[in-house]
Amino acid sequence: MIREIVMDRERFESQMKFLIEADRMKNILRMTLIADGSRRENDAEHSWHLALMAMTLSEYAAEDIDISRVIQMALLHDIVEIYAGDTFAYDAKGNESKAQREADAADRIFAMLPEEQGREYRALWEEFDAMETPDSRYAAAIDRLQPLVNNYLTDGHTWRLGGVTSDKVYKRIAPAEKAMPEVWPVICEYIEKAIDKGMLKR
Amino acid sequence: MIREIVMDRERFESQMKFLIEADRMKNILRMTLIADGSRRENDAEHSWHLALMAMTLSEYAAEDIDISRVIQMALLHDIVEIYAGDTFAYDAKGNESKAQREADAADRIFAMLPEEQGREYRALWEEFDAMETPDSRYAAAIDRLQPLVNNYLTDGHTWRLGGVTSDKVYKRIAPAEKAMPEVWPVICEYIEKAIDKGMLKR
Repeated sequence: MIREIVMDRERFESQMKFLIEADRMKNILRMTLIADGSRRENDAEHSWHLALMAMTLSEYAAEDIDISRVIQMALLHDIVEIYAGDTFAYDAKGNESKAQREADAADRIFAMLPEEQGREYRALWEEFDAMETPDSRYAAAIDRLQPLVNNYLTDGHTWRLGGVTSDKVYKRIAPAEKAMPEVWPVICEYIEKAIDKGMLKR
Repeated sequence: MIREIVMDRERFESQMKFLIEADRMKNILRMTLIADGSRRENDAEHSWHLALMAMTLSEYAAEDIDISRVIQMALLHDIVEIYAGDTFAYDAKGNESKAQREADAADRIFAMLPEEQGREYRALWEEFDAMETPDSRYAAAIDRLQPLVNNYLTDGHTWRLGGVTSDKVYKRIAPAEKAMPEVWPVICEYIEKAIDKGMLKR
């Protein structure tokens, strides 16, 4: 099937505008370090790693998931941070204003796209954030597992920075207990090891 | 449906080993700059941008594609570069040895995974590389469009570096003509503009 060669040029340009703006994700730094500890990770790298992790570990999802939707959520889930910035998971004050900052950012970034595509992407982002569907519960669990792994590999970098205690880490990773029950005991084991090694306060 | 809580620990550890090794993609630098021109792009960022671009522009694919497979190819397509390194598209000498270096790297990286998963990922990577299916033809076209856009935004950075002429750029982006025929005239327009602006030699 070869499609007829006609295109809505304005539509295409708006999609390209969005994709070029998205490049700014490469400059949004997270608190987490990359695994070799050499520097902070950015949102584009994190989103890629998250998508790859979601795809590779999908067999452990407790509920029936649509991996294509999960991966698309992973690719989009942090894009509002282009305007809202990254909010450190253990920054209580920053997290108070997070929802409003991110909703404003979503108004701005998704409006660049053709209307129905912007609506579709925004819906995926909102679904991810709400964690009320099988796809988003699994995606959110992986989104919390990825920095936990990188933290463990970098001597607990962000846990030390924030003077974080293990109850906060358990609370943060909690969605994984139901989303990936088989993996949950392994996660707990790693958190306990992190405490034993002094990366994390009990 | 809640899955029974039993897990093959060795299987999970091999998947985690692969995912941790994959973090090295964040240190594999490409010749292309990020859009603001401030630094070179790495493979993890490029793979994320490519996946987002493939998802956003899928309506222009001339053939019937499975966007889930295309995105998974995009996430995996450069992972062999962890060992084989990035080969500059316009480096004729480097491209002579590329196939062998990448096949050796594939043997190493995909072997980390459980056998059937490693085979599945390697097959996706080989399919991408061969460009003989609708999914891989579209993915390859996007893989060539992404750096073209970033080059255009950074005053033709890699074209200038390599002293590249426009016939080489046309040859490199050629898969897009059949894969995205509606977009092709726009791509040609941008290449001609790049020549007019002195970013690229005729």
